Amino acid sequence: MSLAQEMFAIAPAMGKANLSASQLKLLSGKARWIFRVGEAGFPTVPTIALTRAAWEALQSERTRRESKLRTHWVACLFKLVGKDALPPTLVVRTSAASHNGGLMPAKIGIAAPENPEDSVDPMRPLAKAVKAAFDSYGFGPGWTGRADEDRGRQIVLVQAAAQGEVEQFLTRNATTGAMGPAPVQGAPLPRLPESVDALVALVDAKAGRHMCCTVAITRGQVVFLSARPSQVSAAAELEAAVDRVNRKIWSAQNAVSRVDPNRLAQLLHPRLRSTEGAAPIAVGLGVSPGAASGIVVFNPDDAARMRARGKHCILVVTETGPADIEGMKAATGILTARGGMSSHAGVIARITGKPCVAGVRTLSVDAVEMVCRIGDREFRTGDRLTIDGSDGHVYAGQLSLAQPHIGGAIGTLLDWSDASRSIAVRTNVETVESAKTALSFGAEGIGLARSEHMFFSPERMVALRRVILSEDENDRSRAINGLVDYQTGDYSALFSTMQGLPVTVRLFDPPLHEFLPRSEEEIEETAASLGLAVRALRINLERIAEVNPMLGHRGVRLAITYPEMLQMQMQALMAGARAASETQSDPVAVEVMVPFVSTASEVAWVRDRVNAIAANSGLLRNDRVRFAFGTMIELPRTCLRAGDIAQMVDFFSFGTNDLTQTTFGISRDDAPTFLAAYQRKGIYERDPFVTIDEKGVGEMIAIAIQRGKAANPKLKIGICGEHAGDPASLKFFAGLGVDYVSCSPYRVPVARLTLAQASA
Amino acid sequence: MSLAQEMFAIAPAMGKANLSASQLKLLSGKARWIFRVGEAGFPTVPTIALTRAAWEALQSERTRRESKLRTHWVACLFKLVGKDALPPTLVVRTSAASHNGGLMPAKIGIAAPENPEDSVDPMRPLAKAVKAAFDSYGFGPGWTGRADEDRGRQIVLVQAAAQGEVEQFLTRNATTGAMGPAPVQGAPLPRLPESVDALVALVDAKAGRHMCCTVAITRGQVVFLSARPSQVSAAAELEAAVDRVNRKIWSAQNAVSRVDPNRLAQLLHPRLRSTEGAAPIAVGLGVSPGAASGIVVFNPDDAARMRARGKHCILVVTETGPADIEGMKAATGILTARGGMSSHAGVIARITGKPCVAGVRTLSVDAVEMVCRIGDREFRTGDRLTIDGSDGHVYAGQLSLAQPHIGGAIGTLLDWSDASRSIAVRTNVETVESAKTALSFGAEGIGLARSEHMFFSPERMVALRRVILSEDENDRSRAINGLVDYQTGDYSALFSTMQGLPVTVRLFDPPLHEFLPRSEEEIEETAASLGLAVRALRINLERIAEVNPMLGHRGVRLAITYPEMLQMQMQALMAGARAASETQSDPVAVEVMVPFVSTASEVAWVRDRVNAIAANSGLLRNDRVRFAFGTMIELPRTCLRAGDIAQMVDFFSFGTNDLTQTTFGISRDDAPTFLAAYQRKGIYERDPFVTIDEKGVGEMIAIAIQRGKAANPKLKIGICGEHAGDPASLKFFAGLGVDYVSCSPYRVPVARLTLAQASA
Repeated sequence: MSLAQEMFAIAPAMGKANLSASQLKLLSGKARWIFRVGEAGFPTVPTIALTRAAWEALQSERTRRESKLRTHWVACLFKLVGKDALPPTLVVRTSAASHNGGLMPAKIGIAAPENPEDSVDPMRPLAKAVKAAFDSYGFGPGWTGRADEDRGRQIVLVQAAAQGEVEQFLTRNATTGAMGPAPVQGAPLPRLPESVDALVALVDAKAGRHMCCTVAITRGQVVFLSARPSQVSAAAELEAAVDRVNRKIWSAQNAVSRVDPNRLAQLLHPRLRSTEGAAPIAVGLGVSPGAASGIVVFNPDDAARMRARGKHCILVVTETGPADIEGMKAATGILTARGGMSSHAGVIARITGKPCVAGVRTLSVDAVEMVCRIGDREFRTGDRLTIDGSDGHVYAGQLSLAQPHIGGAIGTLLDWSDASRSIAVRTNVETVESAKTALSFGAEGIGLARSEHMFFSPERMVALRRVILSEDENDRSRAINGLVDYQTGDYSALFSTMQGLPVTVRLFDPPLHEFLPRSEEEIEETAASLGLAVRALRINLERIAEVNPMLGHRGVRLAITYPEMLQMQMQALMAGARAASETQSDPVAVEVMVPFVSTASEVAWVRDRVNAIAANSGLLRNDRVRFAFGTMIELPRTCLRAGDIAQMVDFFSFGTNDLTQTTFGISRDDAPTFLAAYQRKGIYERDPFVTIDEKGVGEMIAIAIQRGKAANPKLKIGICGEHAGDPASLKFFAGLGVDYVSCSPYRVPVARLTLAQASA
Repeated sequence: MSLAQEMFAIAPAMGKANLSASQLKLLSGKARWIFRVGEAGFPTVPTIALTRAAWEALQSERTRRESKLRTHWVACLFKLVGKDALPPTLVVRTSAASHNGGLMPAKIGIAAPENPEDSVDPMRPLAKAVKAAFDSYGFGPGWTGRADEDRGRQIVLVQAAAQGEVEQFLTRNATTGAMGPAPVQGAPLPRLPESVDALVALVDAKAGRHMCCTVAITRGQVVFLSARPSQVSAAAELEAAVDRVNRKIWSAQNAVSRVDPNRLAQLLHPRLRSTEGAAPIAVGLGVSPGAASGIVVFNPDDAARMRARGKHCILVVTETGPADIEGMKAATGILTARGGMSSHAGVIARITGKPCVAGVRTLSVDAVEMVCRIGDREFRTGDRLTIDGSDGHVYAGQLSLAQPHIGGAIGTLLDWSDASRSIAVRTNVETVESAKTALSFGAEGIGLARSEHMFFSPERMVALRRVILSEDENDRSRAINGLVDYQTGDYSALFSTMQGLPVTVRLFDPPLHEFLPRSEEEIEETAASLGLAVRALRINLERIAEVNPMLGHRGVRLAITYPEMLQMQMQALMAGARAASETQSDPVAVEVMVPFVSTASEVAWVRDRVNAIAANSGLLRNDRVRFAFGTMIELPRTCLRAGDIAQMVDFFSFGTNDLTQTTFGISRDDAPTFLAAYQRKGIYERDPFVTIDEKGVGEMIAIAIQRGKAANPKLKIGICGEHAGDPASLKFFAGLGVDYVSCSPYRVPVARLTLAQASA
């Protein structure tokens, strides 16, 4: 493209612009909208554009006292003049691809140059304004423009000054997404002629998103000046997308592909309606998304009391443990001084869907005195706090919340998604309540039921502690039998809720220390309930304590060292399946998987025992129960040995959290001390616990799938780590040819949408 | 082979045996030696052999009243009859590949069968004895024979009864390895005719190991009856091997290939001379090899006092910490109630070469009262204990020890090894004393100097704690400067000791909690030395505590979050190199490596800073210092990204301990709770922390080497995990084409020998 071609009319006063392909590529920001609206035939303010390269060439030609380019430039300027009209007053604007701080505001009221020389003389008004516009493009803080090599392609616009009143409006309502014209936030909707409707329809169709339009109105005539995208709520975006399909602007598939799954996620939790005027008093880790607002409480009893009175409360503790489960369930949100993503608080909060901010360093809690301090402020029971589990912010007082709702536009969009999706979406739940939520969000099965979570209640915890700590064989056997009874009921209820959809139960995988008493009080209680001396219990607890529990005596290692636990679980599972099968017409689909495997020999050992118990139950003979056996893949060695293992199992389920921890050698709980510095210094582009690390963990998964399928072509592949709820990760998994993903209930809609996009 | 051929003379009374290849294959145990000695022309007792298959065929033929095989059998029996002699009295023996409990003892004085029918009739003496011999082959406990399918090939021998005195002797001395005849343990050497010397030489040359021979002597005539291998000390084996080379029975290379490196290892630590009559009173984990015997002490002061008086002592503690270092150095051996392989006690003991038994569950220590209990026995200062750090046994009282010595036969064998070895052997040390030991064992450089170990002294520990815990910037800077001064001297001395051999320094990689005070007393002391309130220090310590320190804030993560530590280290290193270079003619060879890397971006970040400091030192311009930069490979992700990383480094050094922990997802410290069950149930064939797991960790290493070399053909490859001292692992590494291995000083000879064998 010659430099002469880099000065051109994008909306000539007369006729069409007729731009070349290279010229079209230069149109960024406003320029693009002025051109598109003008081309569509809507009255548009005459506008020309020139690039920085063209401008610099004009200047250098001027010092050489030549005039070839200048002639072009003047010809361009004449395109701003209407038929039989006088040269108009001019306006000079920048036109950057995105809004940048520091750019020159439009310069208005510029007299048209009186002669060609004036049109390029930086001392004269027009050229002076053009120079100032180019100079205002910078690369300081806040500048989001492209890198230096593209500077030459930055453009400045010269327009004929518009006549009449200048007005602004949105193409769609910022809250409801309904077709506009609609008021710009904080301003009343101006009185607009009817012809604006055509402009709104035109811009909405072309942009496919909320736009803020600027027009001039003279005696009922509307002239388009410019448009820019407008940030609106996720809800408004979604409603607009569905409306566009209803108006046949988009196909349903188009709508599915245009909605950002991350925006959808924002709709699925209570969230702060606005934080305007509210400054956070502390920042911790947002470990369970959503916002919560309520009365401060310091113990489970108070939380239960509040709940009984229908009041929202925030449970504030130093850290949570098994004794706090009931309190956490009763509370609306949880705030802790210690702990990270996989702390007890984080895990339970995500399971129960409670917003949670953890690890607030400036928080200290005195549970006895029932008072906490956040920085230099004091809060007592009765005071109110608001927490945002999405970004870890903590606010004093009560902020207004918006509740999530599935159905309406979200429901429609998700239904459309399902039509083009080929990968199943399951959910990670273990309670009937969560399972129902997940079903309402469209889950197609349970991909991860963490059996140990079924013990998160005080009375079961006592039984479990007896199994772990009892020194008396008979006592332990009795405790195990008690647990079988509990679990049978749990499984039966879960299978019945899922009505024949597959339920994948992970065999017991507790880091044991999580189930043990910690505080003085708990130790004393536990000793009493076990009939042990406190001192004996303490010695026992010290013996069991692990240096690195994440890499310790857990998962399949427990099944092999304590075969009676495996037996207990399998018996409960088959009894639960039997009970459920008697009350429903669909066969119960039970899938059992072994966690934390690193060798094929472990899988073989467990499989023999699991299959024997399943076969002995007699349930597999009559088609009332369908049974499958699989393994978690969550360690690097398991990925490498996937070929051996695949021959023994029906499915692989990738636990991407643990696989990320071991592949990187990072304890997620301990990462916060350096992760911030890592992201600041550019060592990590993204947090590998949020978005799957494609180059490392991703290759591990790819190796396992390739080797596994080569050895067993019927092998099913699932992903059940938290990455299964992250859009970027889901796109990667879709490329690996997985059969299903399994995420937390609130992430099910996100996965449905993302996987539909990935299948398209 | 027909069944008739499975009955044959292995030493006929007249002529040669003329065995077929299949018959030769059947010769196991004694049969083999009878055949070989007879074939060599030495008078040998006439002997025939038959297989169980042949025997069963003879029996089945008998019930069918046929006689074809029997005719063969009788012909065989006639081979036992000398020229013009009468049929001899017979002896029936088993002949198993290895000695098995429960086998029938030789049945002597059997009359030769009077007719062919008698030779197969189980009611008659010969056939009765043969049947009893076959019946005694079993598969009960202690049976080490082959699996069932080889039963048919088990053999029984029938011999002519020998005349004269039956005598036994060894082919070589069981202690010195000198050529025999030598006495069998516990018996005097019988009077033997000179012709025995020829037999000794013959058997020694054929067997290449100590053999116990049985002969019959009649009027000065020696007749060979049988021979079996004899277990002797590693020292005797080694001396014998060197003697065979001196006698030109073996080539030097032959000797190198025949000595088992694991046997060599037994010679390199003090060891118990004998445990006869001594029963261990407890068993813990043998975490640092060698035996030690001495007076029980409970604190560093007492240990130092004992040492000053030239007395050996065993430091007995619940667990060790930084405050115990001086005590550990002063003690002869260490015994702890808690901790595993990578506990503080284990690590320091291996570094300092002190025998250590850790994690003795039945031990309780009262350091204040200065008394410990092991089971129901009590020990006070002054009592004596003996520990064996090789097998974890603890004995009451003083047992006799044998000291290691390099030189003599070991030195000769290792010199021969070096001639055929192509992979270099370096050592893991960080003190001048250990470096000298390693050099005396033939180390060709330092492959791993753990810089954080240089802080294992009380005064440096204070300075380091100040760096970690101080809340005052100036205070911290001063502490850092103090550390630079310490380290400069350390590095300079280490470089000088190594006289131009490469010294690979690993940048600071402490699991921080190991350097922090733990006991009440230590916390109070540390608080005082830092000028902090005890309560403030405690809060600080709690803040720093990690859930999984093994996967926490360590290695390169520290260099990136605390760049001043990296700077401090590099400055000390270059200053040390400068000082050393001024006192020696060879250039100082400094190699710096980054630990616990998981991304190429970490390597790039550190490399830029390391190279800048190295370049700024000015030392690289004049050839006085040779500098190289490399990275540890100890995480799965690093293996996968080896291609990216290789382009930025001169070498890879595999840390196989951490790579095993992360690849398997096993914390070595916590593994003891399930590892025993795993080995018992056959889940693991071998402990992956002792012998490298070829199929998992091994493939990880292979991937990294392949990708690394593809990206950078000049890349050097080293192994510096503890597997580098394990023969089986070393053979695997040799196959991967590594350039060097680096192991603890005492393992250097083992590596030299093993790698010579691997290169052959």
